[in-house]
Amino acid sequence: MPQDFSTLRINPDRMLDAFNQLASIGATPDSGVDRPSLSEAHLAARKWFREHIEQSGFEFHTDGAGNHSAVLPCDDSSAPTLILGSHLDSVPNGGRFDGALGVMAALEVLKTVRENRIKLKVQLEAMDFTDEEGTLVGLLGSAALAGHLRQEDLQNPRGGRDRLLEGIKRAGLSESGMLSAARKKDSLAGYLELHIEQGKRLESAKKDIGIVTAIVGIWSYRLSFIGKADHAGTTTMEDRRDASLGASSFTLEARELVLREFPNSVVNVGKMEFAPGAFNIVPERVDVSLEFRSPNDEEFNQLNSALLDLAREEAERFGLELKTEFLGKHSPSLMSEIARTAFAEACNTLQLSRIDLSSGAGHDGQSLADLCPVGMIFVPSVDGASHSPREFTKWQDCVNGANVLLQAALRLAG
Amino acid sequence: MPQDFSTLRINPDRMLDAFNQLASIGATPDSGVDRPSLSEAHLAARKWFREHIEQSGFEFHTDGAGNHSAVLPCDDSSAPTLILGSHLDSVPNGGRFDGALGVMAALEVLKTVRENRIKLKVQLEAMDFTDEEGTLVGLLGSAALAGHLRQEDLQNPRGGRDRLLEGIKRAGLSESGMLSAARKKDSLAGYLELHIEQGKRLESAKKDIGIVTAIVGIWSYRLSFIGKADHAGTTTMEDRRDASLGASSFTLEARELVLREFPNSVVNVGKMEFAPGAFNIVPERVDVSLEFRSPNDEEFNQLNSALLDLAREEAERFGLELKTEFLGKHSPSLMSEIARTAFAEACNTLQLSRIDLSSGAGHDGQSLADLCPVGMIFVPSVDGASHSPREFTKWQDCVNGANVLLQAALRLAG
Repeated sequence: MPQDFSTLRINPDRMLDAFNQLASIGATPDSGVDRPSLSEAHLAARKWFREHIEQSGFEFHTDGAGNHSAVLPCDDSSAPTLILGSHLDSVPNGGRFDGALGVMAALEVLKTVRENRIKLKVQLEAMDFTDEEGTLVGLLGSAALAGHLRQEDLQNPRGGRDRLLEGIKRAGLSESGMLSAARKKDSLAGYLELHIEQGKRLESAKKDIGIVTAIVGIWSYRLSFIGKADHAGTTTMEDRRDASLGASSFTLEARELVLREFPNSVVNVGKMEFAPGAFNIVPERVDVSLEFRSPNDEEFNQLNSALLDLAREEAERFGLELKTEFLGKHSPSLMSEIARTAFAEACNTLQLSRIDLSSGAGHDGQSLADLCPVGMIFVPSVDGASHSPREFTKWQDCVNGANVLLQAALRLAG
Repeated sequence: MPQDFSTLRINPDRMLDAFNQLASIGATPDSGVDRPSLSEAHLAARKWFREHIEQSGFEFHTDGAGNHSAVLPCDDSSAPTLILGSHLDSVPNGGRFDGALGVMAALEVLKTVRENRIKLKVQLEAMDFTDEEGTLVGLLGSAALAGHLRQEDLQNPRGGRDRLLEGIKRAGLSESGMLSAARKKDSLAGYLELHIEQGKRLESAKKDIGIVTAIVGIWSYRLSFIGKADHAGTTTMEDRRDASLGASSFTLEARELVLREFPNSVVNVGKMEFAPGAFNIVPERVDVSLEFRSPNDEEFNQLNSALLDLAREEAERFGLELKTEFLGKHSPSLMSEIARTAFAEACNTLQLSRIDLSSGAGHDGQSLADLCPVGMIFVPSVDGASHSPREFTKWQDCVNGANVLLQAALRLAG
């Protein structure tokens, strides 16, 4: 690098002020936020971000997928763009840090670069990606930007088609716009993201920064166990075809299977829906929301087969029919060596301790990993809490992460 | 009896016509009806019943609980009332016969008595009781009429307080009206009900009529298994406190417990509700809708203790908290000897075969069993289907039941 940026730091108080303003939108009484994708609260957060970008004097940019960003142009208008970012949506009744920290840090990096009048060789962009969490589609905005979003993803979203259409309408977006939001590969210089760890590894290892080596993949299904609705008083226990039994047994056995045979994977039954769902009717149908994650394709394929076999066995055992609906997958993604090196050097410059780790959570970076160098860092989550109002990261750790993001961005952009 | 009524029969075509009109209200595409208590469809059925009563020239009567009836007065206005009846509400996505047959048969009995100008010593009343099925409170109208309804029943109904209040408002009723709908004990001469069996015993035994000896009791609870919401990708399987595991294991083990130790009882988990209920969040809380039925108080008390112990054990096994909410009970009820004898004599007169059996389902008669002679008969359910659109009873069996109801009513009223 021709200039020495090594002493440059973000402004912690300015970032905290913006972070707190954002955390007040969709705030829940227990210090969390409830901003499911394209809900009213999420739209309010998006509106605040847009106004904050404009009030800060940055160029505001949006696209057909509703991704919002602040742009700091460089002198060469044909230069590619280095994107920094994360997302402003939350899971239902989630925490203040997940996503929001990464967006606020990205914008703070832009502010710091601009006020120090640093000349970069790329456009710098602070991005809020639409619908990261998957209450609608999941990684929707980043997939659209990367050109990976397909019509099928919108036809059969894991949050339900009706809910997606309501959200699209509420946000003033369109499906055609989403499907034509792709950027050209050669316009992208890279993507860097700061995020909370959402686990306990940094805390246990007493390290400041986690440099992500890979993001695990995620597969999801809706499994429907189907029996027979009958009167719950007059039908003998022996005569019932009770859908709850297949669903319950699958839930217990899926956990045992993963614990026993897939130590690098995790599985979750996040929801069951009972029909008809009355006290006095034997459940006819139980829809199980199933998600599982693995670090590589081979383990994924094995786990997928084992879980589907298990569901069939449990359905058969209780005299039930089984319907399986594949809701989509994200493949595991390796993070770029260039980005990992830039993060490691930034940690050295800032005298912060670090470890390498994989991400058990999905992130927008995986949408972009085949288009440009993608890198990601984590800061410690107290007690590993995540997707919960209990989620918390010490502010100094947030500041450390933003400084590492700044230093790494300068390395990639210099 | 001074008069010989033994050759008197109801009009099958007239009853069928009324039955079919009623079955068209809230009809589902699969030949069932969807008329949950005080829903729009249920209110439409109630309105049709009122108009049909008035068009048939009977006096229409209603009370603070919204019970609707046709009255055929006798010459002595101080004479007590013999009520015949059932209910017009259905379970969600239920069948055409449950409740509706009993109300239509009761009204047809009044029409037959009136057109034959028979003088009775009691007032005769054909009743539609409000909210029998328990989508709101369960046996609401009959409990109110019997003076058993308490403020607590309305405060904490099994269908949820909000849903009850919406229904009350929609129907133009009031809580104070419900709590003051009791009739005087000495105004009641008895209560008789015709209902479909909702089981296979008559079909298996090839008998025309089942004379009910007792109605089993029903207890219900909401059991909440409470763990911790965590990220379903970043939290190891070992670190989770997943509420779905306690709920699932309880569901499976409760069935085993009843099969093993309580052969006269049944248990049902009709619904589980997951919170927060997202694909990528470990379930923090699962609310289980639990109902169980036993024929006598001793078995009830033992089963109740065993199920609550089991719930506690399963919660503990998976590191969960347990909250138990008792939602109410109906004690087992013996049917009156007087009514059973009247039904048996009616079967003899009509040359119909009969057996004695207990009712695994709750019915409005149990609300009245401590106030006046209560009796109940069943007609065969094809394949035992119940609380389902598959519910079906041959029309000749319905006609047989209505004739037995007529003959038994004449015996009690003569």
